[in-house]
Amino acid sequence: MINLAIFGTGRIGTVHALNAAANPEANVKYLVDPVRSHHMTELAKKTAALEADVDTVFADEDVHGIVIASSTDSHADLLMRAARAGKAVFCEKPISLDFATTISTVESLEQSDIRCMMGFQRRYDPDFRTLKERLSNGTAGHIEQILMISRDPFPPPIGYIKRSGGMFLDQSIHDLDMARYLLGEEIKTVYAVGNCLENAAIGDAGDIDTAMITLTSISGRFVQISNSRRSAFGLEQRVEVLCSKEVLSIGNRGHSLLTIADHQGLTSSQPENHFIDRFAWSYRAEMQAFIELIETGTPALTNIRDGLEAQRLAVAALESMHTGNIVELER
Amino acid sequence: MINLAIFGTGRIGTVHALNAAANPEANVKYLVDPVRSHHMTELAKKTAALEADVDTVFADEDVHGIVIASSTDSHADLLMRAARAGKAVFCEKPISLDFATTISTVESLEQSDIRCMMGFQRRYDPDFRTLKERLSNGTAGHIEQILMISRDPFPPPIGYIKRSGGMFLDQSIHDLDMARYLLGEEIKTVYAVGNCLENAAIGDAGDIDTAMITLTSISGRFVQISNSRRSAFGLEQRVEVLCSKEVLSIGNRGHSLLTIADHQGLTSSQPENHFIDRFAWSYRAEMQAFIELIETGTPALTNIRDGLEAQRLAVAALESMHTGNIVELER
Amino acid sequence: MINLAIFGTGRIGTVHALNAAANPEANVKYLVDPVRSHHMTELAKKTAALEADVDTVFADEDVHGIVIASSTDSHADLLMRAARAGKAVFCEKPISLDFATTISTVESLEQSDIRCMMGFQRRYDPDFRTLKERLSNGTAGHIEQILMISRDPFPPPIGYIKRSGGMFLDQSIHDLDMARYLLGEEIKTVYAVGNCLENAAIGDAGDIDTAMITLTSISGRFVQISNSRRSAFGLEQRVEVLCSKEVLSIGNRGHSLLTIADHQGLTSSQPENHFIDRFAWSYRAEMQAFIELIETGTPALTNIRDGLEAQRLAVAALESMHTGNIVELER
Amino acid sequence: MINLAIFGTGRIGTVHALNAAANPEANVKYLVDPVRSHHMTELAKKTAALEADVDTVFADEDVHGIVIASSTDSHADLLMRAARAGKAVFCEKPISLDFATTISTVESLEQSDIRCMMGFQRRYDPDFRTLKERLSNGTAGHIEQILMISRDPFPPPIGYIKRSGGMFLDQSIHDLDMARYLLGEEIKTVYAVGNCLENAAIGDAGDIDTAMITLTSISGRFVQISNSRRSAFGLEQRVEVLCSKEVLSIGNRGHSLLTIADHQGLTSSQPENHFIDRFAWSYRAEMQAFIELIETGTPALTNIRDGLEAQRLAVAALESMHTGNIVELER
Repeated sequence: MINLAIFGTGRIGTVHALNAAANPEANVKYLVDPVRSHHMTELAKKTAALEADVDTVFADEDVHGIVIASSTDSHADLLMRAARAGKAVFCEKPISLDFATTISTVESLEQSDIRCMMGFQRRYDPDFRTLKERLSNGTAGHIEQILMISRDPFPPPIGYIKRSGGMFLDQSIHDLDMARYLLGEEIKTVYAVGNCLENAAIGDAGDIDTAMITLTSISGRFVQISNSRRSAFGLEQRVEVLCSKEVLSIGNRGHSLLTIADHQGLTSSQPENHFIDRFAWSYRAEMQAFIELIETGTPALTNIRDGLEAQRLAVAALESMHTGNIVELER
Repeated sequence: MINLAIFGTGRIGTVHALNAAANPEANVKYLVDPVRSHHMTELAKKTAALEADVDTVFADEDVHGIVIASSTDSHADLLMRAARAGKAVFCEKPISLDFATTISTVESLEQSDIRCMMGFQRRYDPDFRTLKERLSNGTAGHIEQILMISRDPFPPPIGYIKRSGGMFLDQSIHDLDMARYLLGEEIKTVYAVGNCLENAAIGDAGDIDTAMITLTSISGRFVQISNSRRSAFGLEQRVEVLCSKEVLSIGNRGHSLLTIADHQGLTSSQPENHFIDRFAWSYRAEMQAFIELIETGTPALTNIRDGLEAQRLAVAALESMHTGNIVELER
Repeated sequence: MINLAIFGTGRIGTVHALNAAANPEANVKYLVDPVRSHHMTELAKKTAALEADVDTVFADEDVHGIVIASSTDSHADLLMRAARAGKAVFCEKPISLDFATTISTVESLEQSDIRCMMGFQRRYDPDFRTLKERLSNGTAGHIEQILMISRDPFPPPIGYIKRSGGMFLDQSIHDLDMARYLLGEEIKTVYAVGNCLENAAIGDAGDIDTAMITLTSISGRFVQISNSRRSAFGLEQRVEVLCSKEVLSIGNRGHSLLTIADHQGLTSSQPENHFIDRFAWSYRAEMQAFIELIETGTPALTNIRDGLEAQRLAVAALESMHTGNIVELER
Repeated sequence: MINLAIFGTGRIGTVHALNAAANPEANVKYLVDPVRSHHMTELAKKTAALEADVDTVFADEDVHGIVIASSTDSHADLLMRAARAGKAVFCEKPISLDFATTISTVESLEQSDIRCMMGFQRRYDPDFRTLKERLSNGTAGHIEQILMISRDPFPPPIGYIKRSGGMFLDQSIHDLDMARYLLGEEIKTVYAVGNCLENAAIGDAGDIDTAMITLTSISGRFVQISNSRRSAFGLEQRVEVLCSKEVLSIGNRGHSLLTIADHQGLTSSQPENHFIDRFAWSYRAEMQAFIELIETGTPALTNIRDGLEAQRLAVAALESMHTGNIVELER
């Protein structure tokens, strides 16, 4: 049995704790959260875990891996402690809002020999995996263009936005990671435009609610990303890959199969409106991958450097938006 | 050039006249309608045709074929005159409301050597042709079940209903013909249920507005037909053929590609709401087939006996509904 | 906490055991199966249940409810014992292959005061619930026609078929139940046709692999059911309700959102190919309903009489198929 | 009756000649093409037109309007002659491959009082008109983002490409025009990337086969365009407009309603693969608009300045691609 400690008992920490507890190969030994809550106590009960503090976790030699789902400002420090303690890590993005810290943290981790993976759950979605497979095995031919559409049904609370590092680092980063993953090569240029069109409070907080990003890859393939903090249709999560032999697409997932037809037309349902539901399967697969990473060293679909590279693109997008120029990435 | 005379200048006669006039191999020489109207005069102008009476047409040796799109009570007589005059015929269904007359007319025509086709335009729809091809060439495997859904957006005028021979002979007959065509074999039993659920005036006229029919074929394949004089969604014209290797379906044709998505869902358009629009292509192909039948003797997809056999099934459906029993067809 | 005993640890018993164990209000106290297996022992471990025999369960006053998911021939006897022991029951269909036994069992249970529900899980599907709601609250208007399509991806093993009571009692019964449920009234006539078209072994076992059923309701509404033991497309589970104001439909549920487009066309995925997956949510909701039935007496969506009435229709379908006549139900 | 002369009897000139001839309010008096061909003679016969030279047309006072569908290098000269002769003009894009010539031509035309329209047929597509209406009347709320996808099934001949002015001026110009039209405001910046990925011959001819364009509008709305000379799926012509209240989309138009389902999935048809078919209705509506412009002065949906402004964007896209910079438009 793999013993895990979960840092953070918010929305995503809860998902990971429950998935780990339900996994027959894992045991949630500790839950850690600086803010003890009724919810945390309930979660500890359900997962048969102990509520603990940080030092306890790192002092316990029986803990094989930690899941970092705590607030962003704690990520880098927990990663470094894990490296020193020799514990495997599954870390939610971003590593740090400060890119220099991200870089130094990743470098340190890579010099240590601990096993790491980043929490880009979309890579674990079964449809994205099948799509990637058709790209990798040549069935679809060469990629020419990728279009990605990620829109939320409504913005997160302003308090969250203020601590998020901005829309590119918080929302677009998943698309930026997916772009690198699907392309199978690195990005050369980033161009981003953004605006605060609907939610004035977001603008007052220094952030945007609407963005479009264009990437070019080293070999000259193109990517367009459409992001929004609010779509009138709800949570939109789509991708389209134009290849030389096939056009591959993943659409939204409706929350219902019922259609209603009358003289107004044929109406089908909105998408599932929460990413936790949309990616429920992915989160389970991600936890399974972490357990296999610990047990057998099988590389996860995302390593710690993927977190760095996606952030590099998000930082470039921010620069592009602010300067109005194309940002060329140096390597 | 093939010279044609069109009997009847109502809705369907107008379609045939315009299609014949637009066909480079045909010429509309005469339009015949006992009721002369402004519309008829306009149509004659557009098609460069003469307005004529019945005798003129049959006396004119230059007329190669006639199109019978006049009122049902004139069909049998016009068919017999065409047989005597040796002119090819394209006849709209039904041959006669009186089944005995239909039988004797078809027998007479078969003994003559004139070229005949029936106006079951759905057989000429390109999608139905492709579907039939996959059945014929074995791609789809053996038929197991057929489901057909034909519903009108709203009932015809009561005056029309009273002269129509009833819903089975007026509407269902197209599905009954299609069932024989797709199955490629004859029907053994007919079971029909019908009711007047929404339009009391239809019931007062002795007709129904809702029906379901079940057919079994000689080799033991099954067909279900769902008919309605009114669907809340509009003109529905669908088929589904469950075969051993494939399930083949033809859906409704939307009148628009625009979709509107909001928090209520994703709404696409109603179907095209008039069968004249839905089958515009089919009517053109049907006229082309008639011209080729005259020119080269190439058999049309529907002969005069198909009109008889479809009516036989409609008559059986009526009997089944009235008696509450399954009707077994004798041959 | 509600203490439950699960009879039967096959496919469906396993689903119920796991759902009960995952439900925070319930406890799986016993698993009962005459054939002890490794799977059963594993299941007992996962659900923290004891492996027991029948007598132990009925002698234990702490058992509040039993789930009957054992072989059909044990159902009636277990129901009677539950009635005597005063324990709530959740029973999979059918009550007995012998209809007279079903009738007497249901009458006995209705005279006792135990709480009962039947396992027609489709009623608990969220889309079917929404559909039913639009029928009940008048949004959709009056029902005119219902079309139901239930097809399996491939036939069950011959051994299962021989014990199943035949296709109508094993497969169609779910559609027959749904027809009554959606119509909100009883059935007046049943007409069924069936054949063994593809799987000779099924015919040799005295059963059919293809069937179509037509129902008429007391108020003159119509239902068509298309059933098959094998669809080339996989598990098809669809319904369409033509109402005076709306046409309501529930389609198949694809197992993937990925579409692949090329010069052959646009290909989307097969349906989820196992009913256990298709109705996973329904089975959880069904268990929740059983727990609420025990705790508060809240009526479930299906009572024991629904089991009887659906079977009455299946028996009538069988008679209709064998006699070639319409069967009128007496009450 | 409006008398028209059609310049050019190639693909698009033929469409306009036939649509004009079929329009009851118009008469095709002349066909003009420097290269007399059998096709031209046939077309003259079908449209009851005379084959004439340029001077004859401009000398004939009975000619009310001319349609310029000849080779691009003749457009500007014909426009200037029409201005002098006082004849209404319907001109296919572009006005001239040389942007300075386009500007001076448009300015001259605007100073004359002749009635002009440009051939951006997509504005006349009924679905695009409905979409525009929902934007204009406020139903959809404010525009936030527009995504446009225009892809050809396969590249035009190399000879055509060499004379086309390049992909932006030949293909993207329709999207650039549509962007201005839907936004209802002018473009501020243009960013374009392009590459020759699949068809080396296109690259050898100095052109590209793949492009993505990003536009920002003066009020800060964003547009992304995906263009390709070849899509594995065929002719793709889609738009998606994310608005504050609705997400409006227009999809591809399938050439068939037949779907084929088997264990590989559910396959629907390719799109209609020729823009002449896809926009058949639009071309007719465009001709009708030209006739109304001549008859009543009713402004068309596109004036001559729209041709200039769309070309300005295409020129900016070319500059952006070559320099790797964002191009800011001055006005």
